[in-house]
Amino acid sequence: MKMNLDLALKLIAGAKDEAVKIGVPMVISVVDEGGNLVASQRMDGGLLVSINMATNKAYTSVAVRIATHVLATVTQSGQSLFGLHSAENGRIVILGGGFPLIHDGQIIGGIGASGGSVDQDIQCASAGERLLKQ
Amino acid sequence: MKMNLDLALKLIAGAKDEAVKIGVPMVISVVDEGGNLVASQRMDGGLLVSINMATNKAYTSVAVRIATHVLATVTQSGQSLFGLHSAENGRIVILGGGFPLIHDGQIIGGIGASGGSVDQDIQCASAGERLLKQ
Amino acid sequence: MKMNLDLALKLIAGAKDEAVKIGVPMVISVVDEGGNLVASQRMDGGLLVSINMATNKAYTSVAVRIATHVLATVTQSGQSLFGLHSAENGRIVILGGGFPLIHDGQIIGGIGASGGSVDQDIQCASAGERLLKQ
Amino acid sequence: MKMNLDLALKLIAGAKDEAVKIGVPMVISVVDEGGNLVASQRMDGGLLVSINMATNKAYTSVAVRIATHVLATVTQSGQSLFGLHSAENGRIVILGGGFPLIHDGQIIGGIGASGGSVDQDIQCASAGERLLKQ
Repeated sequence: MKMNLDLALKLIAGAKDEAVKIGVPMVISVVDEGGNLVASQRMDGGLLVSINMATNKAYTSVAVRIATHVLATVTQSGQSLFGLHSAENGRIVILGGGFPLIHDGQIIGGIGASGGSVDQDIQCASAGERLLKQ
Repeated sequence: MKMNLDLALKLIAGAKDEAVKIGVPMVISVVDEGGNLVASQRMDGGLLVSINMATNKAYTSVAVRIATHVLATVTQSGQSLFGLHSAENGRIVILGGGFPLIHDGQIIGGIGASGGSVDQDIQCASAGERLLKQ
Repeated sequence: MKMNLDLALKLIAGAKDEAVKIGVPMVISVVDEGGNLVASQRMDGGLLVSINMATNKAYTSVAVRIATHVLATVTQSGQSLFGLHSAENGRIVILGGGFPLIHDGQIIGGIGASGGSVDQDIQCASAGERLLKQ
Repeated sequence: MKMNLDLALKLIAGAKDEAVKIGVPMVISVVDEGGNLVASQRMDGGLLVSINMATNKAYTSVAVRIATHVLATVTQSGQSLFGLHSAENGRIVILGGGFPLIHDGQIIGGIGASGGSVDQDIQCASAGERLLKQ
């Protein structure tokens, strides 16, 4: 299975449903296995900072092949990957809310959500990511 | 009327219908009146170059308040606005396929399409833009 | 109420009066609700670093919808938003001295001041921001 | 004489008066002899593209020490400086409306105006520049 627009919109819709449920306007983005944007949506009232942040979380989760909240730990001052967050002029994001999209052990893309607290971003992005398995 | 996600998705759907009709996969983006992205969709098979191009056409049509194909003429070498296309590090696009979205004489955003010939991009973006009036 | 040049200049004047009072030359900038610059002034002797810093503080306060000194705390290593400061290639500033401009519960722009200590920057930017309420 | 904020604001006011007279909202910027921004103002209704454009015209007129409309000729395709406009990631602008500010044979800064036709931009920027001589 490869990423396509229908799948991207389905995952975004799942993340958006969760964002509506918790009442936090989000930007949600999906990229393909090349890290390139497939779709992005900014809910009404979503923060401007989230536009790039959501897409970059999705990109990071593909580029590093790991959920971005895992990066948050190892990139702290004194930890092994400190400094990673300033790579690629800000495209690498170490805040939670980005998940690689994995199907049959293959990475097919990434999803990122931004707009609330880190926990809320994680909650919404993972709500989208879970739909991949259904 | 202000731009919002529902409206952006409606206009993108209109442009996408036209792209399906002519059989050319496009990237279509809508920005708000501040030039900030509201939504973007890359149809399956859409070009990588079109990802930024579509968004930047939408941005340009807001930033300069004119359809981008009009810029194509006046920015040729020897014409009055030659050089405009290198402003803002590539965000200003002078290829057709970007339209300002105007409601009651007010600019509320912009739409951009990229992926085919310039004429095809214009055709699809304007198909989206026309829906604003319905 | 929307941001306009007269209002921006009034707020800048308020911040500047405060900067004169404490004897620290500042750069003060105001952006609109889309994060786009409306006006900027560098007082004689103001630092070169402050030119972008002031505008980016104003931008950040709109993009994240929060005063930038609040970001300073939560973006420290070990805190929830560590890493935010490297988003958007340096446009996101986590140093105090940026305030969202809120009128009737609506964000209409942001003001940023830079040039002194963080406390001085906060003092001057907030002197400008307070004029919005008068 | 060196550039300072009072002088920059005086020149901007002169350019703005001219812009009001011809009914075209402009962005007007002044930089110092180091090419660094001193002040910028976006009149209500000014184009987003003009924000960087005005400042970059002012910068270019200092960086190349020539009015930007003179550059327009020599940078056309086939001319000696073709390609200059893409230098410095878009900071070099070859559209008219930027003037070096020269006092007693010394360059003390530059002024740039953007928002109308090239002729209108030239008219407004030069109205500001002329005030230097009074």
